[in-house]
Amino acid sequence: MLNNSENENTSIPNGKEGLISKISEKTKSYHKETIYGIGDDSAVLNYHEKRTLVSTDIFVDGIHFDLMYTPLKHLGYKVVVASISDIIAMNATPKHITVSMAVSNVLMQAQILEIYEGIHHACEEYQLDLIGGDITSSKKGVSICVTSMGIANEEDIVYRKGARPTDLLCVTGNLGGAYMGLQLLEREKSIFQSTGVQPKLEGNDYVLQRQLKPTARLELLNYFKTKEIKPTSMIDLSTGLATELINLCNSSNMGCEIFEERIPIEDDTRKIAAEFGIDPTIAALNGGDDFEILFTIELSNYEKIKNNDFFSIIGSINPIDKGTNIVMSDGNIIPIKTN
Amino acid sequence: MLNNSENENTSIPNGKEGLISKISEKTKSYHKETIYGIGDDSAVLNYHEKRTLVSTDIFVDGIHFDLMYTPLKHLGYKVVVASISDIIAMNATPKHITVSMAVSNVLMQAQILEIYEGIHHACEEYQLDLIGGDITSSKKGVSICVTSMGIANEEDIVYRKGARPTDLLCVTGNLGGAYMGLQLLEREKSIFQSTGVQPKLEGNDYVLQRQLKPTARLELLNYFKTKEIKPTSMIDLSTGLATELINLCNSSNMGCEIFEERIPIEDDTRKIAAEFGIDPTIAALNGGDDFEILFTIELSNYEKIKNNDFFSIIGSINPIDKGTNIVMSDGNIIPIKTN
Repeated sequence: MLNNSENENTSIPNGKEGLISKISEKTKSYHKETIYGIGDDSAVLNYHEKRTLVSTDIFVDGIHFDLMYTPLKHLGYKVVVASISDIIAMNATPKHITVSMAVSNVLMQAQILEIYEGIHHACEEYQLDLIGGDITSSKKGVSICVTSMGIANEEDIVYRKGARPTDLLCVTGNLGGAYMGLQLLEREKSIFQSTGVQPKLEGNDYVLQRQLKPTARLELLNYFKTKEIKPTSMIDLSTGLATELINLCNSSNMGCEIFEERIPIEDDTRKIAAEFGIDPTIAALNGGDDFEILFTIELSNYEKIKNNDFFSIIGSINPIDKGTNIVMSDGNIIPIKTN
Repeated sequence: MLNNSENENTSIPNGKEGLISKISEKTKSYHKETIYGIGDDSAVLNYHEKRTLVSTDIFVDGIHFDLMYTPLKHLGYKVVVASISDIIAMNATPKHITVSMAVSNVLMQAQILEIYEGIHHACEEYQLDLIGGDITSSKKGVSICVTSMGIANEEDIVYRKGARPTDLLCVTGNLGGAYMGLQLLEREKSIFQSTGVQPKLEGNDYVLQRQLKPTARLELLNYFKTKEIKPTSMIDLSTGLATELINLCNSSNMGCEIFEERIPIEDDTRKIAAEFGIDPTIAALNGGDDFEILFTIELSNYEKIKNNDFFSIIGSINPIDKGTNIVMSDGNIIPIKTN
């Protein structure tokens, strides 16, 4: 846990004690469920008679992020978004997170605190209590492990496995933007490395924001509640649409059909994709990091949702023997494959 | 979460999908509280009206363990023990763990499964449900992040802060063994590296076991229950006795006096300490990784506990103005300092 006593017999970052007290000072509590947060061996939570949801992810530099072009605040923010998306994708409300970090001495204390600024920012935005963690040194590189906990009434929880034939397949927001942001950052990095020319990123705010500071779709939970809709299945798009569609269909033992023209892709994403000679549909199908939510609802809910602002109906669920297909704009029907 | 859909757009270990299904197959469920474990975006738990305890730690190769002499099974076992010790140190029962791992390609799939063998072994021994995690690649090195969750009745939870003057200071098991085991392993590693002479480890099983396969003191919870004792404060000894005593005293705003001759040290530990020219008291005070539990109980409980088998009374709590001191065997009184 985030306290000043762990691992003192190992080489730890200098001034760990001061670091942790600085982090604690800026850690607010938003929830009555938090009985005790940072400072003892464990945190103590009171989840009453609700169900407890738990999800954990590890993020590693050079694999999930590149310290060369990732602002540290954004990094802190993004790992929290990525983690709580898994709770939201169960139709549950994220409430608590722990963050553990192994950092090499390339990062100064001020830089670790910058990561935590992003974490605290995400906590404020999504009303999360940071209740513990660990900070230790690594020989090389940075690893950040985030565990999210949330709550739901048992009857509200939505698994991946519940999709049924004729259910509508829906996806929040729009897709492929984070992937195009990544392509842009990678290109400018490689130009900078080979020529020393400073990155040109102006005018591309949208896709950069999608990559560096994605949004968790917390408002979806409230939407479902207000409309009295319970999705039949849900999954988050940490990976591309193609992989997660197949995961959802496999879990539900179903097939599906989606329509290329219905996949929501922002104009800015199309513009950058054209510049890179990438088919925007491919970016949407195979690009990751959008953290949108893919879900299915019963066809009978169509009237309730048809004019909604923030998700699109991209297709529907079929029996498994029909396969998982995409109907292209030219009318061709192609099996969906993962990259 | 431990499923096969995360991070597919990054370089992940080959055959991740097969790996996860192998891990899932060997993952048993011991608790009715586990509604849903590995396989969706989040795990789902039902903690009824109990309190939820959460603790998280990150372990890094070259810092917390050395892959050169740490058997992978033991590594998996030890990280679980280290993590659940934090739950036990709140007088709570660990029930669930998540394990996230970032591994470089120095580890083959078979070796990752060996780590999981140790994790599953610990799960069986301490009756824990492994409910999720993440496996991803790292550019270099291995990081393992374990989050433990447990339950307790609200009135049973013991914090660090409750120690009061005249309370008895007690510690489970014995101390310094893990530290001496580490010294032995480090010496043999350095001999092997400089001369190629194979390590001589025979006859030192006890301290090696203390370092490589430590024990979590789960049975202490039952002892307290049977004897109807609620400790006034508790903390686990992941670090040495000296640091944790000071942490406990600081949290409680108290001082303490312990007696050198009462610090439990095994004969095998003394023997190796003598061989290394290390004062065994120093090993006990400053050595880490013992994962014993330090706790205080009211003096009025003395009759109930005086003949117990598995913990020692090493001193008592004083008002803060008396300081935190150790009475040496020669009668000298020395302030306790952390290393």
